[in-house]
Amino acid sequence: MSKDDPEINLAVVGYGYWGTNLVRNFEELPCANLQAVVEPDPGKCQRVQQRYRGLRTVSALEDILDDSSIDAVAIATPVDTHFDLAMAALNAGKHVWIEKPMTETSEQARQLVEVAKRRKLTLFVDHTFLYTSAIRKMQEIVAHGDFGKIYYYDSTRVNLGLFQHDVNVISDLAVHDFSILDFILPERPIAVSASGTTHFPGMPENLAFVSLFYESGTIAHTNVSWLAPVKVRQILLGGANKMIVYDDMAPSEKVKVYDCGVSFTSDPREIYQRLVGYRTGDMWAPKLELTEALRVAGEHFVDCIRTGETPITDGALGLRVVELIEAATTSMKRRGETVEIKTGEKARDSIR
Amino acid sequence: MSKDDPEINLAVVGYGYWGTNLVRNFEELPCANLQAVVEPDPGKCQRVQQRYRGLRTVSALEDILDDSSIDAVAIATPVDTHFDLAMAALNAGKHVWIEKPMTETSEQARQLVEVAKRRKLTLFVDHTFLYTSAIRKMQEIVAHGDFGKIYYYDSTRVNLGLFQHDVNVISDLAVHDFSILDFILPERPIAVSASGTTHFPGMPENLAFVSLFYESGTIAHTNVSWLAPVKVRQILLGGANKMIVYDDMAPSEKVKVYDCGVSFTSDPREIYQRLVGYRTGDMWAPKLELTEALRVAGEHFVDCIRTGETPITDGALGLRVVELIEAATTSMKRRGETVEIKTGEKARDSIR
Amino acid sequence: MSKDDPEINLAVVGYGYWGTNLVRNFEELPCANLQAVVEPDPGKCQRVQQRYRGLRTVSALEDILDDSSIDAVAIATPVDTHFDLAMAALNAGKHVWIEKPMTETSEQARQLVEVAKRRKLTLFVDHTFLYTSAIRKMQEIVAHGDFGKIYYYDSTRVNLGLFQHDVNVISDLAVHDFSILDFILPERPIAVSASGTTHFPGMPENLAFVSLFYESGTIAHTNVSWLAPVKVRQILLGGANKMIVYDDMAPSEKVKVYDCGVSFTSDPREIYQRLVGYRTGDMWAPKLELTEALRVAGEHFVDCIRTGETPITDGALGLRVVELIEAATTSMKRRGETVEIKTGEKARDSIR
Amino acid sequence: MSKDDPEINLAVVGYGYWGTNLVRNFEELPCANLQAVVEPDPGKCQRVQQRYRGLRTVSALEDILDDSSIDAVAIATPVDTHFDLAMAALNAGKHVWIEKPMTETSEQARQLVEVAKRRKLTLFVDHTFLYTSAIRKMQEIVAHGDFGKIYYYDSTRVNLGLFQHDVNVISDLAVHDFSILDFILPERPIAVSASGTTHFPGMPENLAFVSLFYESGTIAHTNVSWLAPVKVRQILLGGANKMIVYDDMAPSEKVKVYDCGVSFTSDPREIYQRLVGYRTGDMWAPKLELTEALRVAGEHFVDCIRTGETPITDGALGLRVVELIEAATTSMKRRGETVEIKTGEKARDSIR
Repeated sequence: MSKDDPEINLAVVGYGYWGTNLVRNFEELPCANLQAVVEPDPGKCQRVQQRYRGLRTVSALEDILDDSSIDAVAIATPVDTHFDLAMAALNAGKHVWIEKPMTETSEQARQLVEVAKRRKLTLFVDHTFLYTSAIRKMQEIVAHGDFGKIYYYDSTRVNLGLFQHDVNVISDLAVHDFSILDFILPERPIAVSASGTTHFPGMPENLAFVSLFYESGTIAHTNVSWLAPVKVRQILLGGANKMIVYDDMAPSEKVKVYDCGVSFTSDPREIYQRLVGYRTGDMWAPKLELTEALRVAGEHFVDCIRTGETPITDGALGLRVVELIEAATTSMKRRGETVEIKTGEKARDSIR
Repeated sequence: MSKDDPEINLAVVGYGYWGTNLVRNFEELPCANLQAVVEPDPGKCQRVQQRYRGLRTVSALEDILDDSSIDAVAIATPVDTHFDLAMAALNAGKHVWIEKPMTETSEQARQLVEVAKRRKLTLFVDHTFLYTSAIRKMQEIVAHGDFGKIYYYDSTRVNLGLFQHDVNVISDLAVHDFSILDFILPERPIAVSASGTTHFPGMPENLAFVSLFYESGTIAHTNVSWLAPVKVRQILLGGANKMIVYDDMAPSEKVKVYDCGVSFTSDPREIYQRLVGYRTGDMWAPKLELTEALRVAGEHFVDCIRTGETPITDGALGLRVVELIEAATTSMKRRGETVEIKTGEKARDSIR
Repeated sequence: MSKDDPEINLAVVGYGYWGTNLVRNFEELPCANLQAVVEPDPGKCQRVQQRYRGLRTVSALEDILDDSSIDAVAIATPVDTHFDLAMAALNAGKHVWIEKPMTETSEQARQLVEVAKRRKLTLFVDHTFLYTSAIRKMQEIVAHGDFGKIYYYDSTRVNLGLFQHDVNVISDLAVHDFSILDFILPERPIAVSASGTTHFPGMPENLAFVSLFYESGTIAHTNVSWLAPVKVRQILLGGANKMIVYDDMAPSEKVKVYDCGVSFTSDPREIYQRLVGYRTGDMWAPKLELTEALRVAGEHFVDCIRTGETPITDGALGLRVVELIEAATTSMKRRGETVEIKTGEKARDSIR
Repeated sequence: MSKDDPEINLAVVGYGYWGTNLVRNFEELPCANLQAVVEPDPGKCQRVQQRYRGLRTVSALEDILDDSSIDAVAIATPVDTHFDLAMAALNAGKHVWIEKPMTETSEQARQLVEVAKRRKLTLFVDHTFLYTSAIRKMQEIVAHGDFGKIYYYDSTRVNLGLFQHDVNVISDLAVHDFSILDFILPERPIAVSASGTTHFPGMPENLAFVSLFYESGTIAHTNVSWLAPVKVRQILLGGANKMIVYDDMAPSEKVKVYDCGVSFTSDPREIYQRLVGYRTGDMWAPKLELTEALRVAGEHFVDCIRTGETPITDGALGLRVVELIEAATTSMKRRGETVEIKTGEKARDSIR
């Protein structure tokens, strides 16, 4: 992309918690030109004005859909509004950035993917984690290093988190693991079993344990909760030759690579005691770039609009994640009953 | 118990990894008198002689069953020998200490409980964790403090552990959580869902995730693995008023009590954003006694023999734990399918 | 202070690293009205304009000294310019906020204190740490709790820090400890011994160890470095009855209070082995307020201007800190030679 | 050394805290043959008998000095008895192992070194740290890696430690740093400045801060205390190309090597802001062997007796450490006054 490329003109829809981050991010991005904020709440519009004088605010998406100078919209509203807003934007010929989870239902996500494809528009789902240097480094180590067969993925995301009234904790937190797994693993899960509960009648589940099963024998698990006294953000990734610990709360050395694994003994004298032994070696913590993930994501979105390239976190990935949320939620409501994942082969090309 | 009480004469069966601890423990215990070690391996017998000159070693349990001077035997052999050895000892009128898990099957455990009851003998299962100051402090806080309703129990026990050839990781590690839950919670689980796998054909499962469901809505979970690059031993216990983090790997302050919880808002302006808010306060780490748990267990065993008192970790508790291992293993083999726990009401009196 | 109090009109001098924080802080403060930024660099002025449209920028302090609508100036320029700028502002009748360290020499600081006193102007030195909830909680515990006699203060402030070309590491980092000690301890140091060095010829010392001696026997020590591979910000504070650990890098529970101390034995049988034993008890981590220290400082500055109250971090405290920097630097250059602190009694009233 | 080498016959003098470790260690060492324990306290002799039946106990060193079957004695008594016992043993032709610190005065140490040299006997001082895999790995990295010039050594050894009545905290804890520095650094300190105090009249200093100065510009510092609420055992070692953090309390990865350093800019535009920048890279934690240091030390002692080789921790090293203790204690009593170290060049050959 050359410096002479025209800037992409954007509008951000929703100036809530994440919307403020999007506005700040697109304001700072040289390749993007933030044109408007769509926000029905006058108080929030006033805050936009105070902070970014001269920035246009409108109260509804319709107000800008006819504006042909706007190339793309970024949707950061509650999830139950995602489908209608994104569909309207796509139908008006706008490229779409949409917060995670993509939609309430996989059927909605499927429709958005189809419309975007038909109209040749970029559909980008903001699974920001895939743009962090930690996850990209892990993906690189697994894909190109001598990591060996992936044995397991074990994630913990717990804290005293903001309760959500409209989505459960799987949709809020496990969603990160579903996208990371889609990015790092070479295959898609074939079944899911989840447990979880709400401790407050009428509220969505605030705590869940989700297991994903893979054809190859890989098993993935995530433990998510809004009700833990300490904040934990940790992933263990076990391979035949190496194992990774990613601790996102660590002030430094967030990703540690352990040179360890399992070896088999054929010594008949030891056979009773143990057929399996351990090999342990050095530990290595690669340097991680400090670039903010949201900035990387923003640049990637603009690039994809310009070049027509498929985003790493395209609508197809967003759809697969929504399918997993649906399947895990179904299993959770049935106390762990196995739910098969019916979707076809993972379209690997689309995410690499 | 008075100082004039006669000492209890014991034999330890098995001088493997844990047997060496039992021998050392009973040697050091003033109220116990270690009379013999039963061990078929001549090399191990020699090690006993070198370390404890004059201590009698015999190659089979039968060699001491007729010795009326021996009051009790402590069995620390592989689990598939527990039933036969314990039954023989009970039938010979000996009190029995048996390592965890109690037996291979719940049916075997049930028979041992019945025989011990009929013969009025002490049957003690060595769930050592219940004799640690950390777990006893947690039990005390939950039972007598203003802990409030128990929302969840969330445990992680992972490390590069010795692979076992005869029992799976649930039987090896989750067994601790099953006994701790039996001790701390006022009710018994009604269903279980477990996921897990072995990464090495022909070997027992080396990694498992187990969820336990309770009538009251409490949910318990344990994450156990022999295949993690770091050692974690952590329990989160969430209550309506307080939450506890027990980190057994911490060099100090292993048990931390957080004064935090959830509060509900009825402010209509906030209703869209959140119905649930957080209350956080101080943290408190109670001083823990340093007495070795195995010593406390040994003294309790001797006391129970003398007084006829039911041990905290009696055969009934050991049986309930084996039932959970069976149910969890069944669920795990069916990829998380819910398995109901059929056993009757928890006999609470027996464990307090 | 009533809501009808007029706002205080301010100018910030210097839009470098810390100046940007000051501008943001005073912009957000309801009781303050930021009128201008003084900054000679046109590029930086442009950045001010972009971020805060309509905010006046001028290139020199003189441009606003005659503006009677400006009540106060906040100086965030290199330390060698502090004296001239502050003196000019005071002489123009402005209240002054000045970054730490107050001045290059104690003589300069003394002159500023005198002028401010004579002209009845507020002179505030931004030792921000004294406005953090952690340090205020520690001060409270020491002053009002049963902390007992203070035995020692032991601080570590090391990291791969930005090398400064104009001040040494004592002036950059130990300055925090000097202000904290002034705030928490009931007495002033009587002597100092410091070691330290630069590893790069022509550059200021990048590593130093400073010991402060007190009449009562209390000893204080700080270890400061710009050349450590890990970032540490830790204070140990030992008292006769309690001890505090303040770890500013901890994600939570930054301040921990240990109920421990020393007890004496008079048991003659133990006299050879130890005359002194330990008493250990619970640990307690008080909840800390999350208010940003700079905001608290800003409000306090405005309050002091309005009420004439002496700031917690007034010029007298700033002067005492500069005296310690001078004494420690002198000792450091003489490889630890004791330097007496000659200043009179700590004017305790002025800092409480 | 061949397997046919005769075993070395030893006696351990003193069955106190460390003596019990020595007895256990020499009992387990195949190349050593523990013949007797010298201990005047009948109660302690009884404990030896209970634990090691058949092991000879005598009440005074004289009782075994004439026994020509005993090749060596290991002295683990209070430091004020070291000189007389060691001198008597050397004069009786015994090789000597002596606990740290070697003697009360450097003059005593010097005499022992001379006598041992004249009589061609092995004189070994038990600075056990130099036999740990962590310190040996650090020495290796500094000596053979691209560590670069050593900038600093910064150690912290604090905890609620057993107060000693006969030696101060420098002699008890800083002694470890003095031996480690002697082992790792290529030069000897030329001056020392120390601060410290006792908080309990009549007792030795319980807290001290010691700085060591080197000709090359390297600076070393150790912070030692018996009065800290938490246990810290940490060394930072900074070099021009790499920096090491050794945390002995960490459950794993005790030694971490950071690929970081300082680089200089000559960009004139940056000259005002910073002349010095940072280079940071990966972190690496080498695998450490798990062999117990005391066992390695014991084997080295026996080897040196057999081969006549000079021990790593020979009398000369022990003497240099005592000289540093003396100099640091002198400086501490004078509140940091610089004390020159007068001893000649470090005899590097003797310690490698």
